[in-house]
Amino acid sequence: MTALPTSTNAAAIDELAASLGSKVSTDRGVRAARGHDRSHLPWEPPSAVVHCTSTADVSTALAICSRHGVPAVPIGAGTGLEGGANSTADAVCLDLSGMDGILRIGARDLDATVQCGVMKSSLNAALADHGLTFPVGPGVDASVGGMASTGASGTTAVRYGTMKENVLGLTVVLADGTVIKTGGRSRKSAAGYDLTHLFVGAEGTLGILTEVTLRVYGIPEATAVAICSFPTLENCTAVVQATLEAGVPISRVELLDDVTVDSVNRYTGLGLPVMPTLIFEFEGSPSSIAEHSSTVRALVDRHDGVGWDYADEPGRIGRIWRARHDALPSYAALVPGSSTWPTDVCVPISRLAECITLTKEDTDAHGVLAPIVGHVGDGNFHLAFVLPPGDENAVAAAAALNGRLVDRALSMGGTSTGEHGIGLGKTASLAKEHASALPVMAAIKKALDPRGILNPGKVLAG
Amino acid sequence: MTALPTSTNAAAIDELAASLGSKVSTDRGVRAARGHDRSHLPWEPPSAVVHCTSTADVSTALAICSRHGVPAVPIGAGTGLEGGANSTADAVCLDLSGMDGILRIGARDLDATVQCGVMKSSLNAALADHGLTFPVGPGVDASVGGMASTGASGTTAVRYGTMKENVLGLTVVLADGTVIKTGGRSRKSAAGYDLTHLFVGAEGTLGILTEVTLRVYGIPEATAVAICSFPTLENCTAVVQATLEAGVPISRVELLDDVTVDSVNRYTGLGLPVMPTLIFEFEGSPSSIAEHSSTVRALVDRHDGVGWDYADEPGRIGRIWRARHDALPSYAALVPGSSTWPTDVCVPISRLAECITLTKEDTDAHGVLAPIVGHVGDGNFHLAFVLPPGDENAVAAAAALNGRLVDRALSMGGTSTGEHGIGLGKTASLAKEHASALPVMAAIKKALDPRGILNPGKVLAG
Repeated sequence: MTALPTSTNAAAIDELAASLGSKVSTDRGVRAARGHDRSHLPWEPPSAVVHCTSTADVSTALAICSRHGVPAVPIGAGTGLEGGANSTADAVCLDLSGMDGILRIGARDLDATVQCGVMKSSLNAALADHGLTFPVGPGVDASVGGMASTGASGTTAVRYGTMKENVLGLTVVLADGTVIKTGGRSRKSAAGYDLTHLFVGAEGTLGILTEVTLRVYGIPEATAVAICSFPTLENCTAVVQATLEAGVPISRVELLDDVTVDSVNRYTGLGLPVMPTLIFEFEGSPSSIAEHSSTVRALVDRHDGVGWDYADEPGRIGRIWRARHDALPSYAALVPGSSTWPTDVCVPISRLAECITLTKEDTDAHGVLAPIVGHVGDGNFHLAFVLPPGDENAVAAAAALNGRLVDRALSMGGTSTGEHGIGLGKTASLAKEHASALPVMAAIKKALDPRGILNPGKVLAG
Repeated sequence: MTALPTSTNAAAIDELAASLGSKVSTDRGVRAARGHDRSHLPWEPPSAVVHCTSTADVSTALAICSRHGVPAVPIGAGTGLEGGANSTADAVCLDLSGMDGILRIGARDLDATVQCGVMKSSLNAALADHGLTFPVGPGVDASVGGMASTGASGTTAVRYGTMKENVLGLTVVLADGTVIKTGGRSRKSAAGYDLTHLFVGAEGTLGILTEVTLRVYGIPEATAVAICSFPTLENCTAVVQATLEAGVPISRVELLDDVTVDSVNRYTGLGLPVMPTLIFEFEGSPSSIAEHSSTVRALVDRHDGVGWDYADEPGRIGRIWRARHDALPSYAALVPGSSTWPTDVCVPISRLAECITLTKEDTDAHGVLAPIVGHVGDGNFHLAFVLPPGDENAVAAAAALNGRLVDRALSMGGTSTGEHGIGLGKTASLAKEHASALPVMAAIKKALDPRGILNPGKVLAG
């Protein structure tokens, strides 16, 4: 935590300071604050932090880092969960949180262009003035650039897709400081290689995203939610499969396992039945919501759902969503002083109930508390290992459980991460999942970043 | 058209024949038949055609071509419009049309895996048995692999997206014959570089797609269409913008310009008003269709639409769609013996009316007949140059108009092709559109195909 700059990056830092002046900081507190994300994964304070405010700043910084062979680690809001923004002592951290300009809102084209550091909440505040919204996003507020870099999604992917489906174009700074544009503003294009999708989800290892053009959407006329409980996880997934096959355009469908329901009951006093639980959200006109919710309710009844509780006014909607939104804080409250380690996998929905059941058996067998919530419509679920303070055995058990979770998902045709990304934490999982394609990823990395200075060690190990 | 194999590819062909036996043909008729797509662009019969029936065949063929440095040009249905499957005399053509196996239909997961040569119509026939459909697709029947390779879309992109949004995973044979898998079966993944999207739309220049896993959809309960006419193109785009902003989930919205309406009137006797015309399609339950069509009808009235004609039974629906489906054959009938040269661009929808208007002024000024249809919801439109037989001046005029069309689209923030791809025909357009990103595309090409044997000259010139 107290590593000092090496002589190599001392020269680079001198040059950065000469070019970017007071934007470059070697203050110890700043370096420590910007050296890591929210994960439990290893990090060191970088040798310097560059507070970038423009694409030109990023370009200048990368050109210097590249010349000196100094690693450059980008960070936005720092809300990642797999160490994707974690620094090492020899790195220069590019702090992009100051790139928070909303550059253009295209109300007639339902698109917007923002700097990478814009927070999702700020974007939505600005869009609201135009009757628009950007619905994609993880549970916590995050920067748009970070969301694009990790291929983030969240509860609304079942309706609106992930960042992959919603980024139309990018400004990217390459390893040597070259600035390129990918994609554009048209809704679709068949012009050349899809570099936009290559950089989205590459976690800053192929280039640094500085501007993002997004699809945006009209704010729905009305919203309603319904919560209900089921005897088994299989009932939950069967209802969701039937809903999707019927083409009912639900905007969210979230699963809470019995442990999560118990946890939020204790935390918020909601008094929900301690059973697998689904929360559905419907958007549209009041009459289409009435139709869609009634279709879903019939499917719920057919699959032994109980306690259907429906709300269409904001106060009651918010109360139902509390069961989901309070899940993570409620976990930490279960064990005083504990920390949580969230992980995620995604499987074909036909395997979801089985994957969750086997995973619960595994965590139970090892005495690890690990409640589950899931974006059922995508087959994506999250496990949060609750780690008592100072319990190294629990950490080791969680790591082993996480490894088996990934293996289980892969054996079912799934993926090692649906939305958290690879970062530092899942490089071995990626190597398993894409064994045949890994050399292609490595070849692309080498072609675009021959000196390996861009966020080294992330996505591709070593 | 009669070029003989060179000594280099004679050796390669001997080796191909030794490994793949009767799957290798040097028959002149076969070589001529499989050497080109439907475009007017240059081609030569390849030196041999390999009728591949498996990924292993493609792997064997590419390993041999790679060793000998012989170009390999893949072709499926041959329905491309930009020369993407056109051969040269020194190339070996890999005919993938025999790879027509439907490998798996995942009714519970709404996905399917097919060999690349499966035609969209065959896939949909097989899916129909499960109550499912794959809605993405161009106007003509095409192979799924070809559609994926060109990033195709069609009339339903406004609702279902393009191939980019609907390919979940791929089996790809690399230049040296290595077989890799990309993506998978989960609905989303944040695991590593998005190679699926890199290969989709790369037109066989980075690898050859042999198996494709697709999202599929439940067949909608009901369908309805409505046709109506407008005084100006601006009225048309304004209605569609308002529809999209209101979040009405139309499944199609097609524009026919006055020239097209006149052309189909002559061809089919439909008697439509010769004005800019929209055809809307609605899918869902009868009550949601009633609601959505009534919302759209109110927007149509507000934007001076006239002659609203609505149909919700198959015969009348088919009759309305004839105006669109007969457009291309009707153009050819306008001038006896003529051929048509279709091209496409895509712009932000706010610029669509202006782009079409300026394009019509340009074609009128040069005396070239070029009717227009468009997927308005995407900002994508097609021009079909009608070329009288043997009129070289018309060809030259069309080429110049096409160049100005692309420049106009680019100046409006659009793209040189929304769905036809780059192929041979638009390599110069791509270089203009993505001037800054072109070196990155070239670096990726070089990293994945160092000898440049995969479909050379397509996408990236030279």
